[in-house]
Amino acid sequence: MALIGIDLGGTKIQAVALDGTEVVADARSRTPVQGGPLAVVDAIGQLVAKVAGEVAPEAVGVGAPGVVDPSTGTVVRAPNLRGWVEPFTLGPALADALGGVPVAVDNDVNVGLLAEHRSGAAAGTDDVLGVFVGTGVGGALILDGELRHGPRGGAGEIGHVVVVRNGRRCGCGQRGHLEAYAGRAAMERRARALDERGRQTVLVELATARRMTSSVFSRALAAGDAVAVRLIEDAVAALATAIASAAVLLDISLVVVGGGLADRLGPKFVRRVEQAAAGELFLPDASLRVVPAALGDLGGAIGAALVAGQAAGR
Amino acid sequence: MALIGIDLGGTKIQAVALDGTEVVADARSRTPVQGGPLAVVDAIGQLVAKVAGEVAPEAVGVGAPGVVDPSTGTVVRAPNLRGWVEPFTLGPALADALGGVPVAVDNDVNVGLLAEHRSGAAAGTDDVLGVFVGTGVGGALILDGELRHGPRGGAGEIGHVVVVRNGRRCGCGQRGHLEAYAGRAAMERRARALDERGRQTVLVELATARRMTSSVFSRALAAGDAVAVRLIEDAVAALATAIASAAVLLDISLVVVGGGLADRLGPKFVRRVEQAAAGELFLPDASLRVVPAALGDLGGAIGAALVAGQAAGR
Repeated sequence: MALIGIDLGGTKIQAVALDGTEVVADARSRTPVQGGPLAVVDAIGQLVAKVAGEVAPEAVGVGAPGVVDPSTGTVVRAPNLRGWVEPFTLGPALADALGGVPVAVDNDVNVGLLAEHRSGAAAGTDDVLGVFVGTGVGGALILDGELRHGPRGGAGEIGHVVVVRNGRRCGCGQRGHLEAYAGRAAMERRARALDERGRQTVLVELATARRMTSSVFSRALAAGDAVAVRLIEDAVAALATAIASAAVLLDISLVVVGGGLADRLGPKFVRRVEQAAAGELFLPDASLRVVPAALGDLGGAIGAALVAGQAAGR
Repeated sequence: MALIGIDLGGTKIQAVALDGTEVVADARSRTPVQGGPLAVVDAIGQLVAKVAGEVAPEAVGVGAPGVVDPSTGTVVRAPNLRGWVEPFTLGPALADALGGVPVAVDNDVNVGLLAEHRSGAAAGTDDVLGVFVGTGVGGALILDGELRHGPRGGAGEIGHVVVVRNGRRCGCGQRGHLEAYAGRAAMERRARALDERGRQTVLVELATARRMTSSVFSRALAAGDAVAVRLIEDAVAALATAIASAAVLLDISLVVVGGGLADRLGPKFVRRVEQAAAGELFLPDASLRVVPAALGDLGGAIGAALVAGQAAGR
């Protein structure tokens, strides 16, 4: 029997079936934009049937964006999912829809790091910080081989550590947080503001009426656009400061950097973060490796399947 | 039988005998400045005999400054102890000197937080950060009820997290670390530099040829000395930034602040740190309490006795 993992995102749902650490099937669909949580449960049910095939799944795990309470399978807050206003007990609802199959739910960033720890860039390490650089900046922690959730489920939130006191305004309302410098949405706001003040940048031209995607940043950087170069420099410095501080505080020697923007900017971007972080460390001889996530797009779904396995006692 | 705890400092050695959580005897002596580690072992032996009285101690714990490897009882590096150049196996040496009594050794800051957790300001909390503001700034972490040492014994080193990128030079050689703003030695360097540049301050007058002690800072602050006021403001802001970031990263809602300088500046200083930290937090509704250490001078020795008890299986 296989373990099924679901990576629930704001735009798509990715599913995998896992046999051991091997992905034996995968499928994806668009995240329903109407119908709220129940439509999503329905869409997940169809994907589970698709990847499980003839065999009944042993257990299903879901990585969900936002604030998740794994103990009850509840998605407490999910600003990136349309129509999810109230907390929703996704675990029990999905278990019902699947005829009683056990369902485990955790935060998408947590399951992503779990996958990297089991079979990706952090394999063989007991203590690792995961930093996921996308629209925002998420983070997760594995200490002594176990995910740290923290008493309120908030552990790992490196996007909201302070890197510049009284610095740029963060989406959360406070100032100077990492996410205000290294999150794609904050970088887009900054680029548009600079453009309005007369700083020419191809970022705005490439994005025009649409979202300034990770690919737009990557192309503008390759073209040597001054604003893009500067924004990426700021992001590198902010990530380095936050990562060096976290590594010192926790005595961690490995950091995995993933997420849409980091994946698109590639290993060179992650190496720049590693080099900048080394310059801020106490005991520079204490090695700190900062490496790119290795599992790519399927990482979240694989991690979700691993959470399902843990919940099923495997 | 009693557990004996030893707090080994750069200037004095404090001993307690503990029965349950009650201190039944205490004694102290000056730290030998000649004779290196062996003279210290001798001095500790005399103190143990003094507080143990007629009864053979069950186990002895030592909190030592610097880098400690608890698994072997080795003090790896202790810049504050004169004549301690090479790593020294304090645990085995002391056990020998005491005729085979089990000896446990840990870092002084770790044992200080352990004591606050067991019977002080952090009693009843599973997750707590301890920040000890003295000559330098030390830190320790209890997560899920257990001290986190980290794979290299460095966990909790909040003194060397970055609070101002490219900021003031830290004693460790890097820039912008918390200790460069909130450690007494760094504040003294800064005050003397400002004085040399013509900024009048009573700090230098009060300290004259001697050390600028915590009491000097306290008196200058009470007198409204502008340099002292500014240095303490900087220290409060730096502590708040580092503490807020650590609390967010680890999902911690209690921070205990102790150490010589913090103790001397009192609860008002700690309240200022708490208020400033609240202004930097993601989700300001997520309560973060920052409270003064409660056990005072004996805290370290009590914590060392608790470590002895753990090692003895109690």
